[in-house]
Amino acid sequence: MSGSSFGTIFKITTFGESHGKGVGVIIDGVTPGVEIDETVIQHQLDRRKPGQSSITTQRKESDKIHILSGVYEGKTTGTAMSLILYNEDQISSDYNSIKDLFRPGHADFTYLQKYGIRDHRGSGRASGRETSARVAAGAVAMKILNSKGINITAYTIRAAGINCIERDLTVIEKNNLRACDSSAAEKMEQKIISLINEGDSVGGIVECLITGVKPGLGEPVFDKIDAELAKAMVSLGAVKAVEFGSGFACADMKGSEHNDSMDKNGFKSNNAGGIIGGITNGEDIIFRIAVKPTSSISKEQKTVNIHGHEHPIKTEGRHDPCICPRIVPVVEAMTSLVLIDMYKRQAALLS
Amino acid sequence: MSGSSFGTIFKITTFGESHGKGVGVIIDGVTPGVEIDETVIQHQLDRRKPGQSSITTQRKESDKIHILSGVYEGKTTGTAMSLILYNEDQISSDYNSIKDLFRPGHADFTYLQKYGIRDHRGSGRASGRETSARVAAGAVAMKILNSKGINITAYTIRAAGINCIERDLTVIEKNNLRACDSSAAEKMEQKIISLINEGDSVGGIVECLITGVKPGLGEPVFDKIDAELAKAMVSLGAVKAVEFGSGFACADMKGSEHNDSMDKNGFKSNNAGGIIGGITNGEDIIFRIAVKPTSSISKEQKTVNIHGHEHPIKTEGRHDPCICPRIVPVVEAMTSLVLIDMYKRQAALLS
Amino acid sequence: MSGSSFGTIFKITTFGESHGKGVGVIIDGVTPGVEIDETVIQHQLDRRKPGQSSITTQRKESDKIHILSGVYEGKTTGTAMSLILYNEDQISSDYNSIKDLFRPGHADFTYLQKYGIRDHRGSGRASGRETSARVAAGAVAMKILNSKGINITAYTIRAAGINCIERDLTVIEKNNLRACDSSAAEKMEQKIISLINEGDSVGGIVECLITGVKPGLGEPVFDKIDAELAKAMVSLGAVKAVEFGSGFACADMKGSEHNDSMDKNGFKSNNAGGIIGGITNGEDIIFRIAVKPTSSISKEQKTVNIHGHEHPIKTEGRHDPCICPRIVPVVEAMTSLVLIDMYKRQAALLS
Amino acid sequence: MSGSSFGTIFKITTFGESHGKGVGVIIDGVTPGVEIDETVIQHQLDRRKPGQSSITTQRKESDKIHILSGVYEGKTTGTAMSLILYNEDQISSDYNSIKDLFRPGHADFTYLQKYGIRDHRGSGRASGRETSARVAAGAVAMKILNSKGINITAYTIRAAGINCIERDLTVIEKNNLRACDSSAAEKMEQKIISLINEGDSVGGIVECLITGVKPGLGEPVFDKIDAELAKAMVSLGAVKAVEFGSGFACADMKGSEHNDSMDKNGFKSNNAGGIIGGITNGEDIIFRIAVKPTSSISKEQKTVNIHGHEHPIKTEGRHDPCICPRIVPVVEAMTSLVLIDMYKRQAALLS
Repeated sequence: MSGSSFGTIFKITTFGESHGKGVGVIIDGVTPGVEIDETVIQHQLDRRKPGQSSITTQRKESDKIHILSGVYEGKTTGTAMSLILYNEDQISSDYNSIKDLFRPGHADFTYLQKYGIRDHRGSGRASGRETSARVAAGAVAMKILNSKGINITAYTIRAAGINCIERDLTVIEKNNLRACDSSAAEKMEQKIISLINEGDSVGGIVECLITGVKPGLGEPVFDKIDAELAKAMVSLGAVKAVEFGSGFACADMKGSEHNDSMDKNGFKSNNAGGIIGGITNGEDIIFRIAVKPTSSISKEQKTVNIHGHEHPIKTEGRHDPCICPRIVPVVEAMTSLVLIDMYKRQAALLS
Repeated sequence: MSGSSFGTIFKITTFGESHGKGVGVIIDGVTPGVEIDETVIQHQLDRRKPGQSSITTQRKESDKIHILSGVYEGKTTGTAMSLILYNEDQISSDYNSIKDLFRPGHADFTYLQKYGIRDHRGSGRASGRETSARVAAGAVAMKILNSKGINITAYTIRAAGINCIERDLTVIEKNNLRACDSSAAEKMEQKIISLINEGDSVGGIVECLITGVKPGLGEPVFDKIDAELAKAMVSLGAVKAVEFGSGFACADMKGSEHNDSMDKNGFKSNNAGGIIGGITNGEDIIFRIAVKPTSSISKEQKTVNIHGHEHPIKTEGRHDPCICPRIVPVVEAMTSLVLIDMYKRQAALLS
Repeated sequence: MSGSSFGTIFKITTFGESHGKGVGVIIDGVTPGVEIDETVIQHQLDRRKPGQSSITTQRKESDKIHILSGVYEGKTTGTAMSLILYNEDQISSDYNSIKDLFRPGHADFTYLQKYGIRDHRGSGRASGRETSARVAAGAVAMKILNSKGINITAYTIRAAGINCIERDLTVIEKNNLRACDSSAAEKMEQKIISLINEGDSVGGIVECLITGVKPGLGEPVFDKIDAELAKAMVSLGAVKAVEFGSGFACADMKGSEHNDSMDKNGFKSNNAGGIIGGITNGEDIIFRIAVKPTSSISKEQKTVNIHGHEHPIKTEGRHDPCICPRIVPVVEAMTSLVLIDMYKRQAALLS
Repeated sequence: MSGSSFGTIFKITTFGESHGKGVGVIIDGVTPGVEIDETVIQHQLDRRKPGQSSITTQRKESDKIHILSGVYEGKTTGTAMSLILYNEDQISSDYNSIKDLFRPGHADFTYLQKYGIRDHRGSGRASGRETSARVAAGAVAMKILNSKGINITAYTIRAAGINCIERDLTVIEKNNLRACDSSAAEKMEQKIISLINEGDSVGGIVECLITGVKPGLGEPVFDKIDAELAKAMVSLGAVKAVEFGSGFACADMKGSEHNDSMDKNGFKSNNAGGIIGGITNGEDIIFRIAVKPTSSISKEQKTVNIHGHEHPIKTEGRHDPCICPRIVPVVEAMTSLVLIDMYKRQAALLS
C-alpha cells in the first residue's frame, strides 16, 4: 500500500520522477462547474520553479502544466482531473559519477533498502520535483477556497540564522527569500550568497497564515485538522518539524497563560493557532515548519558506495542554497489540499 | 467522513465518550496466532490511568480492559479484535454548572460549532479518556513489534521549565514525571506541586526513542513514516508541536553540518532522526513533542456561555497539573500503531 | 488489511463472533442531531432474529441492542456511534463433536487455510450472527433515509422452486417467507416443512425495491451505485448472485428492446433498474439476489477432518431450512448503508 | 469522494474521457523489480481495441500505451507507475447533432443530473474507452500473477441467444466472439451480422475461469473476494448481473445437493465456485456476467432533449453490435486487479 495519494474526498494521487518522462497528478473529487484553466495553475508553478533568483538553483526545469482531463470548455466536470508536467530531455549521464554513491542527506540509501532498486537520476521519485504535482493540485484547491473567502499565505520568518522582525505580508513576493520583512530578507540573502561561495547551504523557518476559515472544520479523533496539516507538512522532504500556535513555547507556559479566554467579542488570544480539539475555531490558523539545509552541497563530504566502500563526494551543479523561498508555494498548496478536504468532509457529515 | 479510524492495514477504530457507557476500539488486521491476554493490555492502561501519584489527577476511572472478540484460547484469530473499557457510574451532574460555558482551552466551543450538539459531560468525545482506547490497541501492536526486536520508549525531557540533563532510560518508571533524569524529575515535581497550590498547570516536552527498526519502512510520497508519526502525535489533544531528529534546530544549521555522512560502519551522526526521505534508515528513530499545559485549572478564568454572555469559570475537582507523565504511554501506543502498519505495508509491497 | 469496514463517509466497522462475548458495530460519520433510540434499531433486529416462525431456526439468540456511544439525550452527536449485542451464555461444548471436521458448505476449511487458527464454535466470525451488526447499523441509516423520502423494501420472490406471481408489498410482513404473494408463500412454506422433515434445506431469490431516490447518486467509474450494491450483497455469506433491472435476461435482448427510451413524462421502461452509468436516474432501483440453501442440514453428508481423514457429518440442532425470510432485513440494511453513503458523497462532491 | 480509484494495496486510479487528450492510470503499490515493458501491456490493449473484426466497431482509437513513470531500465521501481494512452485528434463535431439529446441506454441523463455539466463528446468519462486504462493496469497485475502460477481466462458462453456447448479454451482467441465453442461462435456471428443490418445490437454472457489460486485469499466480512469481484464486474458499464459457481441456479437447489462435500482428495464438486465464506478454497474460481446489448444503435429511438422536448434519435456511425468479445480482456483485467490486491492483503495480514 504505497503512499502516493493524499486526501479523502478531494483526493490527489501523484506520479513521476525527476528524470523520467514527467511528473503529474490526478485529482479526484473536484467540485464540478469551477472555472479553471492552465494560467491559474501555471502561476503557482512559476513561484516554485528553479532559477527565479540568484539564490535559487539555476537548473532548468520544464514546469509547463497540461490539463489532460476533467475540464471541459473551461470548467471542471467533476470527474477525475489530471495534470502533467513533461520533463525536458535531461542529461542523465550527469548523474553517472554518483550512481553508486549514497549522497549524504539524500534518500539514496533508504530507497535502495526499501525497494531493492533505485532510479538514481536526480533523486528519482524522492526528488523535490515531485512537489510540482502537489503545487498544481493545490492551485485547483486554492481556487475553490478563495471563492469561499479563505486565504492562505506562507512566508519565510527565519533563514541563515536571521529572524524577521516585521510580519509584512505585502513584501513577501518582493524579495528573494519570500520573507515577511524586507530588511531581514536582505541580510538573509547576503548570508546565503556567502554560503554559496563556501559550497554550503542553510535551513530556515517558514510560517503559514490562513484567514477566513469558518469554525467547525476537522475530523476528530484522528483526522484533526492540525493532525492532517502536520502530516501534510512533514510529508515534504525538507521539513523536520512543525508547530501550531504557541508551538514548542507552550512547554514552558502555565495553563492560565496558555488558555485562550473568551469575552463577548470572541477569543482574546490565539495560542491555539486557530484550532482546538482538532477543529477550527474561526480564528486565524497559524503554524510554522523547520526547513533543513539543502542536502546537495558542492563542499566535499564523506560517504560510502553501494558496496560499503568509503568514497568522498561533491555534488556538482547549482543547487538551492536555501530551500525556503521555493518551499513557500508548496506549503500553501499542501495547506489548500487539507482545507478543501476538510471543508467537503464537514459538508458530508452534516448532509 | 469522520475520523475515528487510524492506520491502513493494522487499522483501529475507536468510540466512546468520557461519561457515556464506555470507550473502546476495534482493531482490524491483527496478525493471527499472536498470544495475547488482558494482562498485557492492562499493564499499559495502568500506566495511563489517573491517580498514579500526587501530581496526577485523583479522579477515579475504571480502566479495566475487556477483550470482546478476535481472541480464541489465548491467541488472536486474525479477525476483528474489539476491546472495551466500561465507564463506572459517573456523577454527570458535577458538570451541570458548566454545561453552558465554554471552558478556556477546551474543545467545548469547537464541538458545538461543528456538530451543533454537544455531550458536555467531561468533554465527551474530546476527553483525554478517549486515549485509553489508543493505549489498549497500541499494547497489541507493541506485543507484535517487540517480537521483531523493536523497542519504543517515551519519556519527559522537560517540564515546568526544567530540562533533563541525563538520558537514563532506566529511571523513567521510577519517578512521577516519567522523566529520563531522576534529579531533574525531583525539581519538576516540586515546581508542579507549587503550581497545584496556585490552581494552575504547566506544559512540557516528551521525547520518543525507537530502537531495532529495520531500514525500509515508510511509504513515500505522502505516507512517509515521519509524516504518519507527526499526524499520530498531533492527533493527541495536548500536543502543539512535533520535531524529528535535529528538529527546529536544523533551521540554523549548514548542510555540511546537518547531513549525516556515512563510513564503512554506517551513519556517523543522526540529525535525520533515523528517517531519510520518509523511510527508516536503520538508525534509532527519535522525535519530540510539545505538550501544552492542562486546560482545566481551578484558577478563575474569563469566558462566555453559549449565549455569548461573559461569565467567570473555575474548573473544580482535581486535574492533572502536567500531562507529561500520563501522555508517555499514549505516545508509545500511537508510535506502535504507526510502526506495525508500516511494517505490514512494506511486507505487502514486496510480496 | 482486513475487511471489517464498509462505506466511506458513513462508515461501519463490525466485530464479534457467534460464541464470543458479543457482536457489534461502530458507525462513523453519522449525521449529528438525528433522533434515535434503541427501539428503532431493535425493531429491525427482531425481524432478523431466530425463532420467528416454524420455518426459522429455533435457536435462541440474545439480540438486545445496546447503544454505547454517539447518542446524547436521544440524539446523535455526530461522533462515533457504537452498538453492541451481547451473546448469551452459549453452550459451546455443543460444537465439540465437529471441532475438527470441515462442515460442507461452511467456511471452516477456508478460515483455517487463511488464518491458520479457527474459532470453530458456531462458525465464529463467519457466522450469520455477524449480520446482526449490519442490521443494527442499517437501522440508523434507514432512519435518516426515510426522512429524505427514500423507502427500501426487500422480499422473497422465489423459494423452494415456487415463484411469486403477485408483487403485493403489503403482505410481506404477514407471511413466514416475507414473500410478496400470500398464496405463493403458503406453498413455499409447505414445501419447506417437508424439507425440514427430510433434514434438508433449500434456496430462493430475494428482490429489493427502492423508491424515492433522487437522480445523481453513485460515484463513477469504480464506485458506481450498482457496483457498491453488488459488493454489499455478495458480502453476505448466502448470496451467490446479484442482478440489476433486466439482469441476466438482458443477455438475450436487443438494444432496441433494452434501452429505456424517454418521452416528456420521463423514462418509459426500467430495464436499467434505476441506474445508468452507475448513477441513479430517479426511477425505482430494483435488484435481485440468489440465496443458496442453508449449509447446515441434519442429513448425513461426507467430509474430512483437519487431518484429511474422511468422516460422515450431521449438523444437529434446528437450523433455518430456508434463509430467505431472515435475509430480507439484512438486504434492506446493506442497501441502506450504500445509499446513505452515496447521498453523503454526492453532497461532498457538490459542496 | 469520487470513485476513480480501485484496490487497496495494489491500487489504481484512472482518468480521462473519450474525446479529451487521453486516458490513463496510476498504479500505486506495484511490487518492485518486476520486468515489464510496453509490449506486455500493448498485447492486452490490442485485444480490447476497436476494429478487430467485422463484428466490432470500425472506429479508430489510438491505443498505444506509454509508460510515464515507475519503470527504470525495464523493471518496476515500486513507486507509482503511470500509463497513458493519448487520444488521436477526434472529430468531436460528429457529436454536435446529439449534444443536447439524451441517448437511450447511455449515461447522458444521469451525468447531467449528477454533475450539472457534461462532456457530451463520445460519452465523455462514461465512455467504454475508460476501460483501456483498466486493461493497461490489469496487464501489470497479470504479469505478477502469472509468475505465481495463477491464470485468468474469460470467454463468451452465450450471445444473441446462442449457447456454447463446449468449454474449449483453446479456441477463444480464434473466433470473433472470443467464445469457448467454435461452432457456436459461428452461429452467433451470423446472427449478429443480421442484427447489424437491422441497425440493432444484442447482449450475451461472459464467463471467467481462474486457476492456480491458493486457498486463503479474501478479507471477510465485507471485502470477501467474491464481493470485490462482484463490485469489479458491475463497475463495468455494460454489466447487469454477476453470479458465482452455482449462481442463480442455487435458488432451486437443496442443501444436500449444493454443499460441496470433501473426501481425502479434496472437494468433490464446485458449486461454491472456488470461494467459501468469501475466501478462496483452492478450487478453480468461476463466475459469469450478463452483458447488456450495446446502447448505441442506428435504429431510430425516442428520446427527449435537455429541455424535455421529445425528439427522435439515431446513433450514426459503426458501433459494436455485441460487446462480448471486447469485454473479455476487460473482465480479465479487473479480475487480475482484485486477485493481486487480495494476494498482497493476505501477505500483509500474516506478516
